[in-house]
Order: sequence, then structure tokens, then C-alpha cells
Amino acid sequence: MGRVTERRRVLRIRNGATGYRADTLVAEEPMEIRLNGRPLAITMRTPGDDFALATGFLVSEGVLASADEVANVVYCAGATADGGNTYNVVDVTLAPGVPLPDIALERNVYTSSSCGLCGKASLDAVRTATRMPPGDPLAPRLTPELLAALPDRLRAAQEVFDRTGGLHAAALFTGDGDLVDVREDVGRHNAVDKLVGRALTEGRLPLHDLILMVSGRASFELVQKAVMAGIQVLAAVSAPSSLAVDLAAESGLTLVGFLRGDSMNVYAGADRFARAAEQAH
Amino acid sequence: MGRVTERRRVLRIRNGATGYRADTLVAEEPMEIRLNGRPLAITMRTPGDDFALATGFLVSEGVLASADEVANVVYCAGATADGGNTYNVVDVTLAPGVPLPDIALERNVYTSSSCGLCGKASLDAVRTATRMPPGDPLAPRLTPELLAALPDRLRAAQEVFDRTGGLHAAALFTGDGDLVDVREDVGRHNAVDKLVGRALTEGRLPLHDLILMVSGRASFELVQKAVMAGIQVLAAVSAPSSLAVDLAAESGLTLVGFLRGDSMNVYAGADRFARAAEQAH
Repeated sequence: MGRVTERRRVLRIRNGATGYRADTLVAEEPMEIRLNGRPLAITMRTPGDDFALATGFLVSEGVLASADEVANVVYCAGATADGGNTYNVVDVTLAPGVPLPDIALERNVYTSSSCGLCGKASLDAVRTATRMPPGDPLAPRLTPELLAALPDRLRAAQEVFDRTGGLHAAALFTGDGDLVDVREDVGRHNAVDKLVGRALTEGRLPLHDLILMVSGRASFELVQKAVMAGIQVLAAVSAPSSLAVDLAAESGLTLVGFLRGDSMNVYAGADRFARAAEQAH
Repeated sequence: MGRVTERRRVLRIRNGATGYRADTLVAEEPMEIRLNGRPLAITMRTPGDDFALATGFLVSEGVLASADEVANVVYCAGATADGGNTYNVVDVTLAPGVPLPDIALERNVYTSSSCGLCGKASLDAVRTATRMPPGDPLAPRLTPELLAALPDRLRAAQEVFDRTGGLHAAALFTGDGDLVDVREDVGRHNAVDKLVGRALTEGRLPLHDLILMVSGRASFELVQKAVMAGIQVLAAVSAPSSLAVDLAAESGLTLVGFLRGDSMNVYAGADRFARAAEQAH
């Protein structure tokens, strides 16, 4: 499954000089997620960690909450007309007794390289209720110094970004700032689903005590995915949207944006910054 | 419809100093697109140009190809339980005789702030065939100098980005580098749909002679949207994905990435760079 990057011939123009050379691109391929054999969603993703992407997506959708709810995850043979295996179709079979959600029957969804919440039939259904128990409302405790150290650690842990410039990254850190896991993908939401799927398999959900850090922006869907996995702190390099801030505030999630050097904006859940919040009052 | 930005209270931490202040955020709200009264898709978007977003989305899906195929576009009253109008539900009614596509019957889709191709039920359906006639395979003629001027012009034309840091931009330029239109959105694909929807209304499709420039990366879905509108040149500030390059090459679209200063990479369709391509051979 080493298709994280692909090579293509490119005409390079620099200061008026031109020449063809090979260039490394981030791989993007569609992956269909099936639940008990039924097509549920298609996402444009970077190949790799596909089983984790499928199970993490199902955590985000409220279908899965623990590893013992999964009976089996396989690539589907026969995905092509000639019976071949594209390694682009993943079927998740639920354990006996786990209820099959309505979504499997109601939806045929396609999710783009930045879409992880696809398939809702109405505005009311956009918000999915978490199946995780509530965490300690003040954990993990945060300091500006702790958060300021995370972007460099994320950058150092990224394997592919420097080669292609085309990947988003998401990482989990402990409350002490130690890296737990990092994933990269053309879609930021896929990177988060892969982290969550791996945590599910390892029995680490809910992720109450970890910090989720993402490259780029913080959208509504990323906040929703964090909440669904029990994550209580989300830090982003760039700006959040208004709806991301509102959902974070409603959900008790600490949302940090524009985390660059020792400067940052705390958009929701500032109570987890004990000293900083007190100084500002 | 002036909800492009919203204000929120934020705890700002800079060099150890902290304080609360008001911050401007890019607005993100769900919008449901209905076709002849039936829910078709939900997209997370920045409010504004909602009718153009809806019709442009339908161009991208191959439902619309000209303005006379549209009978009516309205915000739906009664979108809330108490009969109110949220201005988040847009219904497009097709003109008499325009075939209603199967997608309206088969799909209930949710598209995120970066998802514009949602709703396909199988991998085969990911690619949508363009309804536009083929354009001149060498038009518009390109030079590195022409393209090098576009990023600054895009930046100058952006209204909201500098205030929030949270918006993607897309712009159309003539073959001489003159700005035709620019749109901003939390979702890059929404910004493109808004451009295309406005062009549809103004009777300017197919956009054979224009250049589409986008902030950020070039994904498969952006190339697909360009092709569906008859656009033949797509330039991006950052990296393309492998599938974006492949679709561009198949479709005769010139795909330029890493357009920064006077340097750029041409991933497909280099024939439109007459001199540059000749020099490199």
C-alpha cells in the first residue's frame, strides 16, 4: 500500500528557464467504504491506513465506539469488472448484535478529499451525537508553552509533506506534548479519521486526555470528528470557521487557532488554560 | 446576505501576554440544495452568492449547461419547524422539458466545506461527463509572464481573506490576464461553483477562453469542475494531486501548480505554452 506519492513528468518554469523533469505528487484515489457489504461513502483519499480510515469514519458517524463492535475489515475482491481487487473498496462488517445504522440504508454518498461528514439528508442531521462518555471538563490542562511546542513537533513528524507540498497532517499529542500518532492525507478529515481508526483498534477511545493538532484550518467537520472521538482539545495552524467555534463551545472542546510560534487564539474552552484565562479576567 | 464574516470573543495569547478581544471569523453555515423541491445535497459554505452556488453546483454535476434550463431559484420558506426562512435552503426549478437527472432520486448527500462532488454511489460514477462542446485545443495561449501576474491580482481582488485568514479564493481571468470575477468561500469548490453559477446566469458558458486560478491546492474535484464548465486552464498556488493531473491530461486541460512569482510547474497541457514547451524539447 505504498502509494502515498506518485511520479509525474512536469514542465518546470523558473526565471524564464524551462525543462521537463520528474516530480513527486501526493497520491489521490477514491475509496469506497462499505458497511456489512452495502456501499456507504466514497472518499477521495491518499492510499494507506485504509482500514483505519474506514473504521475512523464510522466512529465519526457514530456507528462505532469500540474495537469489539468490528467483526472484520477487508479489501473487496471483485471491485472491478474483471473481478480484480483495486484496493480502493473497504468493507467493514459489524460484530453480531451491533445495530446497523439507518445511514447504511438511506445514503449513497461521495466525499471529496476534504469531506468527512457526507451523507446527511437534512440540515438537522448534520450534527451527530457522540457515543463517548463525558471527559473531565478541565483535562488536559493546557499552557501556552505546551501548545507552542506542537507545530514544530508536527512538522518534524510529517513524512511526505516536504516532498510534495500537497498533504494535510493531523497528529495526537499527550497532555505533556509527546507525539502519540501522526497521519497525512490529501484530506484533512481523512487524516483525522485515520488517527481515530488506529486509536479504535488499539482500544484507546475515548481520547479524552489527548490533543489533536491539524495543519491548516479548523472547520465544523473537524470539530465534529474530534467530539465524536472524545477529544477535548483541537489546535489548528490557521483559522477556524464560525460554526467550528460554535460547535466547540457547545461541546466543551477547547479550540485553538493560528497556533504559530508562541502566539495563538483560543476560540472556545479557555478554561483549560488555567493561568492564562485567569490573567485575562 | 452579508454574513461572510462573524464576530466572536477570543482569548488571544501573544508572547506570554493574554487578553480577550473580538475576532473576525469566516462564516460557515450548511446550505441545502434542492432540485425541483427534492433535497439533493448539503454543502458547508460561506453565505453569499447562494443562488450561484446552487446553479454552479448543478453545472458541475452535469444537470445544467445554460441559463435557459433554469426556471426559478428561490430560498425556501418553511425551512425551520416554525415555518421560518433560514436562507440556508435553496431550491432550483428546472425549465419545462429539461430532464431531471437520476441523481435527484438516488441521492441524499452532504458535502463538507471542501466537497463539491458528493453523491456518487459508485467509483465508476465519480467522473461526470461534460456537456460543453470542445474548445480550441490551443486556446487560450499562455506565457509564463501572463500566469506569473495572476497570484498578485487574485490577492488584490480578495475582499475577506486578510481579515479572517480562513477563506479560499477562486478567480477567472481572460487570456490577457484581466480579472473577470472572483469569489471566496470556506470551501474552494464552493468558490468555483459560485464563479460558474454566475457565468451560467450571464450566458458566458462554456468558459473556453478563461483561466481559472485558485488559492491553495488543485484536487481532482477542482479539475472536474473546471472541465464541466468548459474551462481549459487551471492554475493553483500549491500542489496538485496525482488524480488531478491524470484527469487534466485526459481532458486536455492545462494544469499549473506551485504558481509563485515567476516560477511554476506545468503538470498537463503544456502545449498551450507555445514557446516554453518548444524550448524544453
